[in-house]
Amino acid sequence: MTKTDNLKNMLRPKSIVIVGASGDRSKISYKPISNLRDIGFEGEVFLVNPKYEEIDGYPCYPNIDSIPDNIDVALVAVGSKYVEEVLHQLKKKNIKSVALFSSGYSETGEKGQELEDRIAEFSNENSIPICGPNSLGFANVKDKTIVSFSTLEIGDYDPVAFITQSGALGSLSYTSAKELGLGFQYFVSSGNETSVDYFDYVKFMAQQDDIRVIGGYLEGARNFEKMSSAIDLCHQNNKPLVLMKVGNSSKGAEAASSHTASLAGDSNIYRNYFEQKNVVQVSDEDELIDTMSVFNKTKKSPQRGGLAVVTQSGGAGIIIADQSEIKDVQLAEINESTKEKLHEVLPPHSTLKNPIDFTAQVSQNPQQIVDSTKITLEDPNVESVILYLQMTDERFLPIIPELSKVAEETDKTLVLCWSGIKPETKEKILAQKNICWIPNPTRAINAVANVMKFYEKQEQQLDEVSYLVDHDNLTEKKDLKELDEHQSKELLRSYQIPIPNNFSINHFEELTDQFVNYPIVMKALHSEIQHKSDYGLVEININNHAEAQEAYEKIISNWEKHFPEHQNKEVLVEEMADEGVEVFVGCVNDEVFGPCIMFGLGGIFVEVLKDTAILPAPLTYNQASKMIRSIKSFPILDGERTGIQYDLKALTEVIVKISEFCAIHSTEISELDLNPVIVHEQGKGVSVVDAVIVDKERDLEKVNQ
Amino acid sequence: MTKTDNLKNMLRPKSIVIVGASGDRSKISYKPISNLRDIGFEGEVFLVNPKYEEIDGYPCYPNIDSIPDNIDVALVAVGSKYVEEVLHQLKKKNIKSVALFSSGYSETGEKGQELEDRIAEFSNENSIPICGPNSLGFANVKDKTIVSFSTLEIGDYDPVAFITQSGALGSLSYTSAKELGLGFQYFVSSGNETSVDYFDYVKFMAQQDDIRVIGGYLEGARNFEKMSSAIDLCHQNNKPLVLMKVGNSSKGAEAASSHTASLAGDSNIYRNYFEQKNVVQVSDEDELIDTMSVFNKTKKSPQRGGLAVVTQSGGAGIIIADQSEIKDVQLAEINESTKEKLHEVLPPHSTLKNPIDFTAQVSQNPQQIVDSTKITLEDPNVESVILYLQMTDERFLPIIPELSKVAEETDKTLVLCWSGIKPETKEKILAQKNICWIPNPTRAINAVANVMKFYEKQEQQLDEVSYLVDHDNLTEKKDLKELDEHQSKELLRSYQIPIPNNFSINHFEELTDQFVNYPIVMKALHSEIQHKSDYGLVEININNHAEAQEAYEKIISNWEKHFPEHQNKEVLVEEMADEGVEVFVGCVNDEVFGPCIMFGLGGIFVEVLKDTAILPAPLTYNQASKMIRSIKSFPILDGERTGIQYDLKALTEVIVKISEFCAIHSTEISELDLNPVIVHEQGKGVSVVDAVIVDKERDLEKVNQ
Repeated sequence: MTKTDNLKNMLRPKSIVIVGASGDRSKISYKPISNLRDIGFEGEVFLVNPKYEEIDGYPCYPNIDSIPDNIDVALVAVGSKYVEEVLHQLKKKNIKSVALFSSGYSETGEKGQELEDRIAEFSNENSIPICGPNSLGFANVKDKTIVSFSTLEIGDYDPVAFITQSGALGSLSYTSAKELGLGFQYFVSSGNETSVDYFDYVKFMAQQDDIRVIGGYLEGARNFEKMSSAIDLCHQNNKPLVLMKVGNSSKGAEAASSHTASLAGDSNIYRNYFEQKNVVQVSDEDELIDTMSVFNKTKKSPQRGGLAVVTQSGGAGIIIADQSEIKDVQLAEINESTKEKLHEVLPPHSTLKNPIDFTAQVSQNPQQIVDSTKITLEDPNVESVILYLQMTDERFLPIIPELSKVAEETDKTLVLCWSGIKPETKEKILAQKNICWIPNPTRAINAVANVMKFYEKQEQQLDEVSYLVDHDNLTEKKDLKELDEHQSKELLRSYQIPIPNNFSINHFEELTDQFVNYPIVMKALHSEIQHKSDYGLVEININNHAEAQEAYEKIISNWEKHFPEHQNKEVLVEEMADEGVEVFVGCVNDEVFGPCIMFGLGGIFVEVLKDTAILPAPLTYNQASKMIRSIKSFPILDGERTGIQYDLKALTEVIVKISEFCAIHSTEISELDLNPVIVHEQGKGVSVVDAVIVDKERDLEKVNQ
Repeated sequence: MTKTDNLKNMLRPKSIVIVGASGDRSKISYKPISNLRDIGFEGEVFLVNPKYEEIDGYPCYPNIDSIPDNIDVALVAVGSKYVEEVLHQLKKKNIKSVALFSSGYSETGEKGQELEDRIAEFSNENSIPICGPNSLGFANVKDKTIVSFSTLEIGDYDPVAFITQSGALGSLSYTSAKELGLGFQYFVSSGNETSVDYFDYVKFMAQQDDIRVIGGYLEGARNFEKMSSAIDLCHQNNKPLVLMKVGNSSKGAEAASSHTASLAGDSNIYRNYFEQKNVVQVSDEDELIDTMSVFNKTKKSPQRGGLAVVTQSGGAGIIIADQSEIKDVQLAEINESTKEKLHEVLPPHSTLKNPIDFTAQVSQNPQQIVDSTKITLEDPNVESVILYLQMTDERFLPIIPELSKVAEETDKTLVLCWSGIKPETKEKILAQKNICWIPNPTRAINAVANVMKFYEKQEQQLDEVSYLVDHDNLTEKKDLKELDEHQSKELLRSYQIPIPNNFSINHFEELTDQFVNYPIVMKALHSEIQHKSDYGLVEININNHAEAQEAYEKIISNWEKHFPEHQNKEVLVEEMADEGVEVFVGCVNDEVFGPCIMFGLGGIFVEVLKDTAILPAPLTYNQASKMIRSIKSFPILDGERTGIQYDLKALTEVIVKISEFCAIHSTEISELDLNPVIVHEQGKGVSVVDAVIVDKERDLEKVNQ
């Protein structure tokens, strides 16, 4: 049993001990006690405090030795310097899990880090999961449990789990969710994640039958495998995972040593990876809560279709139409028979095509709002409906329960955007728990679009990785240190990656025409020279022996000029690849994701427009294929537009094989640049004409220079 | 005096007559009376209603004939079919302005449009400005005036004018503004804008000394000159204009006949034009109000600099840092001496570099929040400060008046983002009128970034148009109908636009080498053939007479094949331009903006990536230069990156001259495509190697086909 199997003890405890609780109601260390009392925790509570016999009816013990064994969770409210001693005492009492709130750990420097490392070790060795340190704690409202110093105004809850790496942003979300009538069943502030990390909690939530939606703030994952398996479990168990990934500035990428690394930026990897895994990514605090609310409060329509807008305001309809174009959500084509039915119930000058605008006239007879919403929901082309109303109007109040009934009866997604209302009206709306209310048009469409896109992608299967390259049978096991271009290419060739025929020479005399298929290219070979063309060390378009001699001499002379210290001057002679579109395939070894494959069109598209996609290796054929299609400049490769069919199948296979090569050699390779890879016309394959492999040792040397 | 000179009478009236007011308090037509009474209008109010002597103390008259002359504004609350009669009677009483609320006009179809046209005529002929019809009306809170059927809960006001083309979105904003403690001094719902349009109101507001910020929803302008002069007046009078432009879907562009038109999309023109004119463009409802609030409630820092974040939460600091990168706002480099001062006042583990994180410890001593904010504001590198706090904590309440004092004393922009607070705390914050409060980090940074960018650009001068081409002295005045490529190029040449030397031949024998500077290109000349290369009617790289003959015969043979109906087969012979970067310059004649110049890199960049910029003609040199630099692929033209200096000066001049040509011929030209224009290396100019001019008549024919 690993420590995270014990998360149930932590998050759904039957017994809690608070170490360091105060009976002084004015002190913050009294707060965990009052929190438990206020929420009405039904399990056992033990306190450790020699000064009291009991506090608020909970029994006090003079020390940890005297508490019962096998308590589910210990809330440890002592300063960081006493923590280790407390943990060891708790272990003797067979504690099941711990929550640590205090700060004074890794966030304060080296000593704190050391302490935290020891705590992590303690947790691992004893399989005792620890929440925190430096955390707000957690709450499980359904089980009337709160383990926290913070004041959370607990109210109704929905089957929603919120997990946050930032305590403050968690509190913010807690309040904003309440404003939409959304309550979190679970709220977890993961803190420094010494022992239990973000995706451990996600995995736990994905396993809970009574949880429908999981979401929160993520600064970064700590372990790719954990993240990956938690996300896959969410997918498998149909739990949407809605994340706001923060910390996306480009700082990290600046210091990177290679081309690929400088383009990567870990935020791009997260974005591409989450996109592929159908993790719902949101870009601001409101969108996070709105999206979770739509997932929770509305139904998943039985079939996919378009969005219909039923609106009291042309302007709001326009905003929603604008934004659905940006969010790539189709507006539904309203059926003729639906239009006829709408015509019967709506005021004369209403617009019957989507956005359906029933005009301000509807205030004369608000029942029309209910009827038209119902009719629109029944249209077979419609997957989701946003109903927009504005202003507080007493005459509209009677339709609130009616709208609730519509929401109950429909099997589709319905969101109410009623703006500019009085607080009393809002309360009346939120009292109908099944109405999903969002305060303005842009927020409504953004959330609905996220939900529609999620369901659309969810119907696709997750890919299974199956290696194209039979790497177990690869006879050639090379040492990957300080490879020059020729060696790099030989290695890649053994992975069935198409490299033009080539050989290397140490003297021009070694070049005899019988082995050469002109035109050829010639390049200086040296593992330390990175940008050969910049020094005149590459000659292309060599058509015969005479040109070859001239080219060779040019290269040698430039070489002597720029690198007089080099003794050996080996030159690569390679058949020149046919024409085609130049693309770029690279790999960067990310701290979290491991080797990641980057793809883009060559030259300007990578250098200037940074139009690239990046995903962790290895890739399936399907993933590689989607990756190729995901870049903005894909139409250049696309036969339908250019009239030329390029060999996309061969390109896809090469990307898959490169990804497999990088995955297999993830411990040795730091970076890889194949630039350019030439994609030829249909049936003619691709040619990898340049290859640079940076091994980890070489990369390290550079960093230390 | 034009009708819009009378807007003061409408929006700041001393006397009001309500035609069609009801004394029945249950009826909506009583509302304008109670609105005036509730707000405490101090001018004279007259009612026309034969059934009463007086209502709520306001005198009633049996008919319009009997009311006094020279009343400032008439609120006309009668059905559309009676409106014309009422207007004519009001004119006899020398009414100064009118507000029309009813619907039943152009929005209902042809008959309504005709009625609206007659009302427009009435307004123009008599210089009587009319607000509406189909409008919510307007309010001027400072002058205690409200002319509306709607319920607006009038409260405090700020020197802010809100103008909306959508009534509903206006109401929404009114409520959201209140939630930020922002009150509109003016609120105008412009309705169908039969007589007074959006930018007439903007212009009026720009002239009011007591207005600091103008903003609202715009679906579209009706008149470019009005828009342009209103925006210039805002700039001149230092009034930020904050607009949410809605209605940006690509529908409009679909049916367009040419390349340029199909790429334009009027939303791009608005975006580029507003960008250039320093109109602050926002992308959602919250950003609109947040930005107006920051403009209104905070100060313009005396000098430009960076943004500093002072935060209680690392997470919020990260969100703000992420978003400032997206919004292209620099985080300020905190001075060493500032850091020392911060170190003295803040808790031990605080982060002293920007974002300045004083950690949750600050709750032990909230005075530290005030002190550190003050110190940060004093840093010379800091232009603006966002202070982030979280959660309601009673201990924080005493700092609210202290923060108000900091806001009062600083001469810089300070925004407070205090999230997750209780309604009571919020009220206490908003009671300090000089604190600009925004509820979450993303909203705070978006608004502050808009304001900082505005001030930065505002310090630049507006460009004056001065023609490069001396068009008055152009001797050649051509008829612009059905021009073939040769004729188009001749015309452009007369505007000093560089066209390679060329001539046309009817028979190959006319080509004698003495006139030809090889290499040359040859093209079929016919005004009806649009994509010559598609039919094999273009031959390039012709190096001598023999090749020329071959090329000529190929063209003629393809011509006969594809267009057997053509009698004359004139062929253009043109010197082949040197190498360079291919760009695209086009013109599309927009309904509102008139001729607009589009620029982009040729081929893929325009076709696939749609990386273009577009601005109304004529352009100044400075505008054209900025336009070239505004596209994403500009680095390709930029010597610093490519190592090759291209002739950007020549390109800029050509774009200016093309813009002047298009401006001068705006009534005749529908579209123009110069594709490609080749930009040579520094000093070698540009060559316009293909030119298509579509005259309005030809365009019309196509539409009718």
